[in-house]
Amino acid sequence: MSLPRVYGMSSSGNCYKVRLLLEQLQLPYDWVEIDTRSGLTRQAEFLQRNPNGRVPTLEYQPGHYLAESNAILVYLAEGSRFWPQHRLERAQALQWMFFEQYSHEPYIAVARFICAALPPQHERRGELPRLQERGYQALAVMERQLGAARYFAGDGYSVADIALYAYTHAAGDGGFDLQRFPAVRTWIERVQGQPHFVPMPPLPGG
Amino acid sequence: MSLPRVYGMSSSGNCYKVRLLLEQLQLPYDWVEIDTRSGLTRQAEFLQRNPNGRVPTLEYQPGHYLAESNAILVYLAEGSRFWPQHRLERAQALQWMFFEQYSHEPYIAVARFICAALPPQHERRGELPRLQERGYQALAVMERQLGAARYFAGDGYSVADIALYAYTHAAGDGGFDLQRFPAVRTWIERVQGQPHFVPMPPLPGG
Repeated sequence: MSLPRVYGMSSSGNCYKVRLLLEQLQLPYDWVEIDTRSGLTRQAEFLQRNPNGRVPTLEYQPGHYLAESNAILVYLAEGSRFWPQHRLERAQALQWMFFEQYSHEPYIAVARFICAALPPQHERRGELPRLQERGYQALAVMERQLGAARYFAGDGYSVADIALYAYTHAAGDGGFDLQRFPAVRTWIERVQGQPHFVPMPPLPGG
Repeated sequence: MSLPRVYGMSSSGNCYKVRLLLEQLQLPYDWVEIDTRSGLTRQAEFLQRNPNGRVPTLEYQPGHYLAESNAILVYLAEGSRFWPQHRLERAQALQWMFFEQYSHEPYIAVARFICAALPPQHERRGELPRLQERGYQALAVMERQLGAARYFAGDGYSVADIALYAYTHAAGDGGFDLQRFPAVRTWIERVQGQPHFVPMPPLPGG
Protein backbone atom coordinates (compact mmCIF):
# COMPACT_ATOMS: atom_id res chain seq x y z
CA MET A 1 0.00 0.00 0.00
CA SER A 2 1.36 3.38 -0.99
CA LEU A 3 1.81 6.21 1.48
CA PRO A 4 -0.48 9.23 1.48
CA ARG A 5 1.23 12.04 -0.39
CA VAL A 6 0.86 15.73 0.43
CA TYR A 7 1.51 18.43 -2.14
CA GLY A 8 2.31 21.41 0.02
CA MET A 9 4.43 24.48 0.75
CA SER A 10 6.01 23.93 4.17
CA SER A 11 5.79 27.57 5.29
CA SER A 12 2.07 27.84 4.45
CA GLY A 13 -0.08 27.55 7.56
CA ASN A 14 -2.75 25.66 5.64
CA CYS A 15 -0.16 23.07 4.57
CA TYR A 16 1.47 22.96 8.01
CA LYS A 17 -1.87 21.92 9.54
CA VAL A 18 -1.74 18.69 7.53
CA ARG A 19 1.88 18.00 8.42
CA LEU A 20 1.25 18.59 12.12
CA LEU A 21 -1.68 16.17 12.17
CA LEU A 22 0.23 13.50 10.22
CA GLU A 23 3.12 13.79 12.68
CA GLN A 24 0.77 13.59 15.64
CA LEU A 25 -1.00 10.58 14.14
CA GLN A 26 2.45 9.05 13.59
CA LEU A 27 1.39 8.19 10.05
CA PRO A 28 4.13 7.84 7.44
CA TYR A 29 3.64 10.08 4.40
CA ASP A 30 5.35 11.56 1.35
CA TRP A 31 5.67 15.34 1.13
CA VAL A 32 6.06 16.98 -2.28
CA GLU A 33 7.25 20.54 -1.75
CA ILE A 34 5.46 23.03 -4.03
CA ASP A 35 6.57 26.65 -4.12
CA THR A 36 3.31 28.42 -4.96
CA ARG A 37 5.31 31.48 -6.11
CA SER A 38 6.48 29.40 -9.10
CA GLY A 39 3.01 29.35 -10.65
CA LEU A 40 3.05 25.55 -10.61
CA THR A 41 -0.35 25.28 -8.93
CA ARG A 42 -1.93 27.11 -11.89
CA GLN A 43 -0.53 24.75 -14.52
CA ALA A 44 -2.55 21.96 -16.16
CA GLU A 45 -0.68 19.11 -14.45
CA PHE A 46 -1.47 20.45 -11.00
CA LEU A 47 -5.04 21.44 -11.92
CA GLN A 48 -5.67 17.76 -12.69
CA ARG A 49 -5.04 17.15 -8.98
CA ASN A 50 -6.97 20.14 -7.69
CA PRO A 51 -9.02 22.21 -10.16
CA ASN A 52 -9.00 25.06 -7.62
CA GLY A 53 -5.19 25.26 -7.94
CA ARG A 54 -4.30 25.32 -4.26
CA VAL A 55 -2.12 23.56 -1.73
CA PRO A 56 -2.36 21.52 0.37
CA THR A 57 -3.73 18.75 -1.83
CA LEU A 58 -3.72 15.19 -0.49
CA GLU A 59 -3.18 12.23 -2.81
CA TYR A 60 -4.84 9.68 -0.56
CA GLN A 61 -4.49 6.91 -3.17
CA PRO A 62 -2.42 7.08 -6.35
CA GLY A 63 -4.36 9.31 -8.74
CA HIS A 64 -7.06 10.24 -6.19
CA TYR A 65 -7.02 13.63 -4.54
CA LEU A 66 -8.63 15.61 -1.75
CA ALA A 67 -8.32 19.40 -1.38
CA GLU A 68 -9.04 22.02 1.32
CA SER A 69 -6.83 21.85 4.38
CA ASN A 70 -9.61 21.44 6.91
CA ALA A 71 -11.39 18.72 4.91
CA ILE A 72 -8.05 16.87 4.73
CA LEU A 73 -7.69 17.20 8.52
CA VAL A 74 -11.12 15.64 9.11
CA TYR A 75 -10.45 12.85 6.62
CA LEU A 76 -7.14 11.93 8.24
CA ALA A 77 -8.39 12.32 11.82
CA GLU A 78 -11.60 10.26 11.60
CA GLY A 79 -11.34 7.36 14.02
CA SER A 80 -8.51 8.95 16.00
CA ARG A 81 -8.48 10.98 19.22
CA PHE A 82 -8.15 14.16 17.14
CA TRP A 83 -11.75 13.91 15.85
CA PRO A 84 -14.45 14.05 18.56
CA GLN A 85 -16.62 11.00 19.18
CA HIS A 86 -19.82 12.91 19.90
CA ARG A 87 -22.00 14.49 17.24
CA LEU A 88 -22.24 17.85 18.96
CA GLU A 89 -18.49 18.07 19.53
CA ARG A 90 -17.84 17.19 15.89
CA ALA A 91 -20.17 20.03 14.90
CA GLN A 92 -18.35 22.39 17.26
CA ALA A 93 -15.02 21.37 15.73
CA LEU A 94 -16.46 22.10 12.27
CA GLN A 95 -17.90 25.42 13.49
CA TRP A 96 -14.40 26.55 14.49
CA MET A 97 -12.84 25.21 11.30
CA PHE A 98 -15.32 27.16 9.16
CA PHE A 99 -14.73 30.19 11.39
CA GLU A 100 -11.00 29.76 10.72
CA GLN A 101 -11.39 29.73 6.94
CA TYR A 102 -13.97 32.53 6.74
CA SER A 103 -13.29 34.95 9.61
CA HIS A 104 -9.65 34.32 10.54
CA GLU A 105 -7.37 33.07 7.75
CA PRO A 106 -8.40 35.69 5.13
CA TYR A 107 -7.16 38.40 7.54
CA ILE A 108 -4.42 36.92 9.75
CA ALA A 109 -2.77 34.74 7.10
CA VAL A 110 -2.99 37.41 4.42
CA ALA A 111 -1.48 40.06 6.75
CA ARG A 112 1.38 37.62 7.46
CA PHE A 113 1.94 37.10 3.75
CA ILE A 114 1.97 40.83 3.00
CA CYS A 115 4.30 41.68 5.90
CA ALA A 116 6.67 38.72 5.68
CA ALA A 117 6.76 37.68 2.02
CA LEU A 118 6.33 40.89 0.00
CA PRO A 119 8.85 43.76 -0.31
CA PRO A 120 8.42 46.55 2.32
CA GLN A 121 7.04 49.09 -0.17
CA HIS A 122 4.56 46.75 -1.87
CA GLU A 123 1.20 48.34 -2.68
CA ARG A 124 -0.69 45.55 -0.92
CA ARG A 125 0.40 47.08 2.41
CA GLY A 126 -2.59 49.37 1.88
CA GLU A 127 -4.79 46.38 2.74
CA LEU A 128 -3.28 46.05 6.22
CA PRO A 129 -5.57 48.37 8.23
CA ARG A 130 -8.68 46.39 7.20
CA LEU A 131 -6.91 43.06 7.69
CA GLN A 132 -5.79 44.15 11.18
CA GLU A 133 -9.29 45.22 12.15
CA ARG A 134 -10.89 41.96 11.03
CA GLY A 135 -8.03 39.83 12.34
CA TYR A 136 -8.30 41.39 15.79
CA GLN A 137 -12.04 40.64 15.74
CA ALA A 138 -11.24 36.97 15.10
CA LEU A 139 -8.66 36.89 17.90
CA ALA A 140 -11.21 38.44 20.28
CA VAL A 141 -13.72 35.69 19.42
CA MET A 142 -11.03 33.07 20.15
CA GLU A 143 -10.12 34.78 23.44
CA ARG A 144 -13.73 34.61 24.55
CA GLN A 145 -13.93 30.88 23.82
CA LEU A 146 -10.60 30.14 25.49
CA GLY A 147 -11.56 32.13 28.58
CA ALA A 148 -14.15 29.40 29.24
CA ALA A 149 -12.56 26.26 27.76
CA ARG A 150 -9.15 24.68 27.29
CA TYR A 151 -9.78 23.67 23.67
CA PHE A 152 -12.13 24.58 20.85
CA ALA A 153 -14.27 21.42 20.67
CA GLY A 154 -15.11 19.21 23.62
CA ASP A 155 -12.61 18.53 26.39
CA GLY A 156 -9.59 17.59 24.33
CA TYR A 157 -7.17 18.74 21.66
CA SER A 158 -8.66 18.18 18.19
CA VAL A 159 -8.32 19.14 14.55
CA ALA A 160 -10.11 22.39 15.43
CA ASP A 161 -7.10 23.38 17.55
CA ILE A 162 -4.71 22.35 14.77
CA ALA A 163 -6.65 24.41 12.23
CA LEU A 164 -6.64 27.53 14.41
CA TYR A 165 -3.12 27.15 15.78
CA ALA A 166 -1.46 27.33 12.35
CA TYR A 167 -1.92 31.02 11.63
CA THR A 168 -2.74 32.22 15.17
CA HIS A 169 0.67 31.43 16.66
CA ALA A 170 2.28 33.27 13.72
CA ALA A 171 -0.05 36.28 13.91
CA GLY A 172 2.87 38.44 15.05
CA ASP A 173 4.35 38.02 11.55
CA GLY A 174 1.38 40.03 10.29
CA GLY A 175 1.76 42.76 12.92
CA PHE A 176 -0.78 41.45 15.46
CA ASP A 177 0.02 41.89 19.16
CA LEU A 178 -0.94 38.69 20.99
CA GLN A 179 -0.13 40.28 24.39
CA ARG A 180 -3.74 41.47 24.36
CA PHE A 181 -5.02 37.89 24.35
CA PRO A 182 -3.74 36.01 27.41
CA ALA A 183 -6.06 33.01 27.00
CA VAL A 184 -4.98 32.62 23.38
CA ARG A 185 -1.32 32.73 24.44
CA THR A 186 -1.85 30.06 27.11
CA TRP A 187 -3.65 27.90 24.55
CA ILE A 188 -0.76 28.32 22.07
CA GLU A 189 1.57 26.90 24.74
CA ARG A 190 -0.92 24.09 25.39
CA VAL A 191 -0.85 23.16 21.69
CA GLN A 192 2.95 23.32 21.59
CA GLY A 193 3.04 20.90 24.51
CA GLN A 194 1.09 18.17 22.68
CA PRO A 195 2.88 14.89 21.93
CA HIS A 196 4.72 14.82 18.59
CA PHE A 197 4.27 18.55 18.06
CA VAL A 198 6.38 19.96 15.21
CA PRO A 199 6.90 23.70 14.58
CA MET A 200 5.96 25.63 11.43
CA PRO A 201 8.84 26.98 9.30
CA PRO A 202 8.99 30.74 8.57
CA LEU A 203 7.88 32.20 5.24
CA PRO A 204 10.66 32.77 2.71
CA GLY A 205 11.27 36.55 2.51
CA GLY A 206 10.00 38.63 -0.40
CA MET B 1 -38.63 18.42 23.88
CA SER B 2 -38.26 21.90 22.39
CA LEU B 3 -37.85 22.50 18.68
CA PRO B 4 -34.52 23.55 17.20
CA ARG B 5 -34.56 27.30 16.69
CA VAL B 6 -32.80 29.11 13.86
CA TYR B 7 -31.84 32.78 14.14
CA GLY B 8 -31.61 33.80 10.51
CA MET B 9 -32.32 36.31 7.75
CA SER B 10 -34.50 34.55 5.18
CA SER B 11 -32.95 36.22 2.14
CA SER B 12 -29.38 35.33 3.18
CA GLY B 13 -28.05 32.34 1.27
CA ASN B 14 -26.18 31.10 4.33
CA CYS B 15 -29.42 31.11 6.33
CA TYR B 16 -31.45 29.64 3.48
CA LYS B 17 -29.15 26.59 3.42
CA VAL B 18 -30.33 25.71 6.92
CA ARG B 19 -34.00 26.22 6.11
CA LEU B 20 -33.74 24.11 2.95
CA LEU B 21 -32.17 21.21 4.84
CA LEU B 22 -34.69 21.41 7.69
CA GLU B 23 -37.53 21.33 5.15
CA GLN B 24 -35.98 18.40 3.32
CA LEU B 25 -35.43 16.55 6.60
CA GLN B 26 -39.09 17.32 7.41
CA LEU B 27 -37.98 18.43 10.88
CA PRO B 28 -40.15 20.96 12.69
CA TYR B 29 -38.28 24.09 13.76
CA ASP B 30 -38.71 27.65 14.98
CA TRP B 31 -37.37 30.48 12.83
CA VAL B 32 -36.50 33.81 14.42
CA GLU B 33 -36.14 36.38 11.67
CA ILE B 34 -33.14 38.68 12.21
CA ASP B 35 -32.57 41.64 9.90
CA THR B 36 -28.77 41.95 9.99
CA ARG B 37 -29.09 45.55 8.74
CA SER B 38 -30.58 46.48 12.12
CA GLY B 39 -27.26 45.91 13.90
CA LEU B 40 -28.90 43.36 16.19
CA THR B 41 -26.24 40.71 15.56
CA ARG B 42 -23.60 43.07 17.00
CA GLN B 43 -25.46 43.67 20.27
CA ALA B 44 -24.59 41.95 23.55
CA GLU B 45 -27.70 39.77 23.65
CA PHE B 46 -26.96 38.24 20.27
CA LEU B 47 -23.22 37.96 20.93
CA GLN B 48 -24.10 35.67 23.86
CA ARG B 49 -25.49 33.29 21.26
CA ASN B 50 -22.71 33.70 18.71
CA PRO B 51 -19.62 35.72 19.71
CA ASN B 52 -18.83 36.10 16.00
CA GLY B 53 -22.08 38.04 15.52
CA ARG B 54 -23.42 36.23 12.50
CA VAL B 55 -26.49 34.44 11.25
CA PRO B 56 -27.47 31.69 10.90
CA THR B 57 -27.08 30.57 14.50
CA LEU B 58 -28.81 27.39 15.62
CA GLU B 59 -30.17 27.02 19.14
CA TYR B 60 -30.13 23.23 19.19
CA GLN B 61 -31.20 23.12 22.85
CA PRO B 62 -32.50 26.03 24.90
CA GLY B 63 -29.44 28.17 25.71
CA HIS B 64 -27.03 26.09 23.58
CA TYR B 65 -25.88 27.39 20.22
CA LEU B 66 -24.05 26.35 17.09
CA ALA B 67 -22.77 28.80 14.45
CA GLU B 68 -21.45 28.62 10.87
CA SER B 69 -23.97 27.58 8.24
CA ASN B 70 -22.03 24.59 6.95
CA ALA B 71 -21.30 23.23 10.44
CA ILE B 72 -25.02 23.50 11.18
CA LEU B 73 -25.79 21.57 7.98
CA VAL B 74 -23.49 18.72 8.98
CA TYR B 75 -24.87 18.64 12.52
CA LEU B 76 -28.47 18.43 11.31
CA ALA B 77 -27.73 16.00 8.47
CA GLU B 78 -25.73 13.40 10.40
CA GLY B 79 -27.54 10.08 10.23
CA SER B 80 -29.71 11.15 7.29
CA ARG B 81 -29.37 10.57 3.54
CA PHE B 82 -28.00 14.10 3.17
CA TRP B 83 -24.69 13.20 4.87
CA PRO B 84 -22.64 10.51 3.11
CA GLN B 85 -22.08 7.17 4.82
CA HIS B 86 -18.54 6.65 3.57
CA ARG B 87 -15.52 8.42 5.02
CA LEU B 88 -14.14 9.53 1.68
CA GLU B 89 -17.48 10.93 0.52
CA ARG B 90 -17.87 12.81 3.79
CA ALA B 91 -14.43 14.32 3.19
CA GLN B 92 -15.42 15.25 -0.36
CA ALA B 93 -18.58 16.91 0.94
CA LEU B 94 -16.47 18.89 3.42
CA GLN B 95 -13.97 19.77 0.67
CA TRP B 96 -16.75 21.38 -1.34
CA MET B 97 -18.23 23.09 1.72
CA PHE B 98 -14.87 24.66 2.60
CA PHE B 99 -14.47 25.60 -1.08
CA GLU B 100 -17.85 27.29 -0.86
CA GLN B 101 -16.94 29.39 2.16
CA TYR B 102 -13.41 30.30 1.01
CA SER B 103 -13.45 30.49 -2.79
CA HIS B 104 -17.12 31.03 -3.71
CA GLU B 105 -19.24 32.85 -1.11
CA PRO B 106 -16.83 35.76 -0.52
CA TYR B 107 -17.17 36.66 -4.22
CA ILE B 108 -20.56 35.47 -5.47
CA ALA B 109 -22.55 36.32 -2.32
CA VAL B 110 -20.81 39.65 -1.82
CA ALA B 111 -21.41 40.64 -5.47
CA ARG B 112 -25.10 39.78 -4.99
CA PHE B 113 -25.24 41.92 -1.87
CA ILE B 114 -23.59 44.91 -3.56
CA CYS B 115 -25.75 44.70 -6.69
CA ALA B 116 -29.09 43.84 -5.09
CA ALA B 117 -29.04 45.41 -1.62
CA LEU B 118 -27.00 48.62 -1.94
CA PRO B 119 -27.97 51.80 -3.83
CA PRO B 120 -26.82 51.89 -7.49
CA GLN B 121 -24.12 54.52 -6.88
CA HIS B 122 -22.64 52.92 -3.75
CA GLU B 123 -18.83 53.08 -3.55
CA ARG B 124 -18.61 49.33 -2.95
CA ARG B 125 -19.45 48.81 -6.64
CA GLY B 126 -15.72 49.39 -7.15
CA GLU B 127 -15.15 45.93 -5.68
CA LEU B 128 -17.18 44.25 -8.42
CA PRO B 129 -14.45 43.61 -11.04
CA ARG B 130 -12.36 41.59 -8.57
CA LEU B 131 -15.43 39.81 -7.21
CA GLN B 132 -16.50 38.89 -10.74
CA GLU B 133 -13.07 37.54 -11.62
CA ARG B 134 -12.85 35.35 -8.53
CA GLY B 135 -16.50 34.33 -8.69
CA TYR B 136 -16.14 33.17 -12.29
CA GLN B 137 -13.11 31.12 -11.23
CA ALA B 138 -15.27 29.38 -8.62
CA LEU B 139 -18.05 28.71 -11.15
CA ALA B 140 -15.49 27.23 -13.55
CA VAL B 141 -14.27 24.84 -10.84
CA MET B 142 -17.88 23.77 -10.22
CA GLU B 143 -18.49 23.32 -13.96
CA ARG B 144 -15.50 21.00 -14.17
CA GLN B 145 -16.79 18.85 -11.29
CA LEU B 146 -20.34 18.75 -12.67
CA GLY B 147 -19.12 17.81 -16.13
CA ALA B 148 -18.08 14.47 -14.59
CA ALA B 149 -20.58 13.93 -11.76
CA ARG B 150 -24.22 14.61 -10.97
CA TYR B 151 -23.54 15.84 -7.44
CA PHE B 152 -20.61 17.16 -5.42
CA ALA B 153 -20.00 14.25 -3.06
CA GLY B 154 -20.64 10.61 -3.89
CA ASP B 155 -23.59 9.54 -6.00
CA GLY B 156 -26.36 11.45 -4.28
CA TYR B 157 -27.63 14.85 -3.28
CA SER B 158 -26.01 15.95 -0.01
CA VAL B 159 -25.34 18.94 2.20
CA ALA B 160 -22.49 19.85 -0.20
CA ASP B 161 -25.10 20.50 -2.90
CA ILE B 162 -27.24 22.50 -0.49
CA ALA B 163 -24.24 24.62 0.54
CA LEU B 164 -23.27 25.39 -3.06
CA TYR B 165 -26.79 25.79 -4.42
CA ALA B 166 -27.66 28.70 -2.11
CA TYR B 167 -25.57 31.42 -3.73
CA THR B 168 -24.89 29.73 -7.09
CA HIS B 169 -28.49 29.74 -8.29
CA ALA B 170 -28.70 33.45 -7.38
CA ALA B 171 -25.38 34.36 -8.99
CA GLY B 172 -27.25 36.36 -11.63
CA ASP B 173 -28.22 38.82 -8.89
CA GLY B 174 -24.51 39.70 -8.67
CA GLY B 175 -24.11 40.08 -12.43
CA PHE B 176 -22.79 36.60 -13.23
CA ASP B 177 -23.87 34.98 -16.49
CA LEU B 178 -24.66 31.32 -15.83
CA GLN B 179 -25.22 30.66 -19.55
CA ARG B 180 -21.51 29.94 -19.71
CA PHE B 181 -21.87 27.00 -17.33
CA PRO B 182 -24.28 24.43 -18.77
CA ALA B 183 -23.41 21.67 -16.29
CA VAL B 184 -23.98 24.08 -13.39
CA ARG B 185 -27.37 25.05 -14.85
CA THR B 186 -28.43 21.42 -15.21
CA TRP B 187 -27.34 20.74 -11.62
CA ILE B 188 -29.37 23.75 -10.41
CA GLU B 189 -32.47 22.18 -11.98
CA ARG B 190 -31.53 18.85 -10.39
CA VAL B 191 -31.41 20.49 -6.95
CA GLN B 192 -34.71 22.26 -7.55
CA GLY B 193 -36.28 18.90 -8.38
CA GLN B 194 -35.41 17.34 -5.00
CA PRO B 195 -38.26 16.36 -2.67
CA HIS B 196 -39.44 19.13 -0.32
CA PHE B 197 -37.38 21.76 -2.12
CA VAL B 198 -38.22 25.34 -1.07
CA PRO B 199 -37.02 28.45 -2.93
CA MET B 200 -34.86 31.27 -1.51
CA PRO B 201 -36.54 34.68 -1.11
CA PRO B 202 -34.98 37.71 -2.85
CA LEU B 203 -32.86 40.24 -0.97
CA PRO B 204 -34.68 43.34 0.24
CA GLY B 205 -33.60 46.25 -2.00
CA GLY B 206 -31.04 48.83 -0.86
